[in-house]
Formats: sequence, structure tokens, C-alpha cells
Amino acid sequence: MIKKVNHIGIAVSSLDAAMKIVKDVFGLEVTGVEEVPSQKVKVAFVPVGDTRLELLEPTAEDSPISKFLATRGEGMHHIALETDDVAGDLRKAEEAGARLIDKEPREGAHGTKVGFLHPKSTFGVLMELVEEPGEHKS
Amino acid sequence: MIKKVNHIGIAVSSLDAAMKIVKDVFGLEVTGVEEVPSQKVKVAFVPVGDTRLELLEPTAEDSPISKFLATRGEGMHHIALETDDVAGDLRKAEEAGARLIDKEPREGAHGTKVGFLHPKSTFGVLMELVEEPGEHKS
Repeated sequence: MIKKVNHIGIAVSSLDAAMKIVKDVFGLEVTGVEEVPSQKVKVAFVPVGDTRLELLEPTAEDSPISKFLATRGEGMHHIALETDDVAGDLRKAEEAGARLIDKEPREGAHGTKVGFLHPKSTFGVLMELVEEPGEHKS
Repeated sequence: MIKKVNHIGIAVSSLDAAMKIVKDVFGLEVTGVEEVPSQKVKVAFVPVGDTRLELLEPTAEDSPISKFLATRGEGMHHIALETDDVAGDLRKAEEAGARLIDKEPREGAHGTKVGFLHPKSTFGVLMELVEEPGEHKS
């Protein structure tokens, strides 16, 4: 079951410039910066209410974010919905006709399980499902 | 002060199709549909945690959403941050170098005050500030 928006992913060309905007323009705090080698990105975490913005800067030319920046420029990249059952929700989404990028959950950062849906079947929005560790419904 | 993400605006070409996806693919509820004549859109509200998705279908060819759909296709359109002082936050944003679409707050739906920032100065994301009625800081 979907519980909340876990994060909103935003592709940026300069993490330093984007973090400065987040702080100076909106008065928001960046609580951490981390490299995620599997996605070839450096991420800045910006909590807002019960969700957060994730600013994503590519660390390699073949990063998915590099390709996005080259074709679309900076901007919103994906929405991650938090669930207590990624595997079950991916199966239900497929049964409802959605096109999946990940048929099965895979490992995300910090022990999360994640799965992506193709934007073609979800009104042009790249949607991620994410399950935090210990959250799996019993 | 920014308190939470008020909503995430998503441009869709068919509200009926998008509402079906939201329900069938993600198991989320649409709590209401409303026409906003000033923006020439029909909006479906989809609460998720302490925020909501707003699905936006244009009701006229000169709607801002019509133009967005024509150039970019369906997808994420803007992020609205909730604050207790739109006027003050717009002023601070401008002082910090942001380019404003609205120099002063204007009336939004349901007695809200809203102001938009230009995506050029906020990493390609159209950002809205929104103040709910009765929320103004004392």
C-alpha cells in the first residue's frame, strides 16, 4: 500500500549551485550529500514535511541523469512513492496494465527495495516504488 | 517559512485516463475534481501522505497546460511548497537572486495566496509558493 511520497527526484547539472538555491531562495536545509555509484549520481537530501527533494547530479557521462540533462535539461526527474510491499505493488501495477522497468524489486540505497515503472504508462511521469527496510507488511 | 510540499502538479491530456491509472496502478484515491477557470484547467486531487498529486487537464487551447503538453508532452509540471508567508518568501527569493513570475502574491483556489518562481533560476523546476487561508504567520 502506498503511504506517502518518499521523495521527488530533480536532475541538476551542478549540485553546489542547486544546494545554494535551495538554501538561499527557499530557506530549506540540505541534510546530507551522498554518492550512489550504482546510479552514477551524487545526491543531496532536502527534507520538506514528510517527504524530501533529492537533487541528482551525474557522476559519469553514461549516468541516466546525464542523458536526461542532455535531452531535457535540468528539471523534475521522477516521483518516488513509499510502500510497504514493492514486490506486490509492482505485480498489481503490471496486472493493471502498467509497463514496468523493474519486474522485480532491486536493491536501492540504505537497504531499500525499489522498482521503477515506465513513464509511458503513467502519464509521462517516471514513477519509483520504494520500500524502506523493516517496513514490509506482515 | 516552508512547511511542506503542498502538491505536485502533473500535466495530463486526459483526466479520466490519468485518474484510472492513479486508482488501478497505484491504489490511490481521487478525492475530488474541480475546474479552475483562472488557470483554464480541470484538476483531480490525489492525497498521498501529507501532500497530494494534482492532475491537470487543460480546458482551453490557450491554457498554460495546453502549451506545456504541446511542447513537452504529459509529465511533471510544477512543485508547490506551502509557506506561512508567500509575500515575505517571494521577497526573500528575489533578494537571493531568483527570478519571479509573480512579484506579489495573487489569489489561488479556495482562498489561498500563491506566487510562482521562474524555472530558469530554480534548476529547471517551476516552483509555486502557496499559503493556505488562516495560515499567515502572526
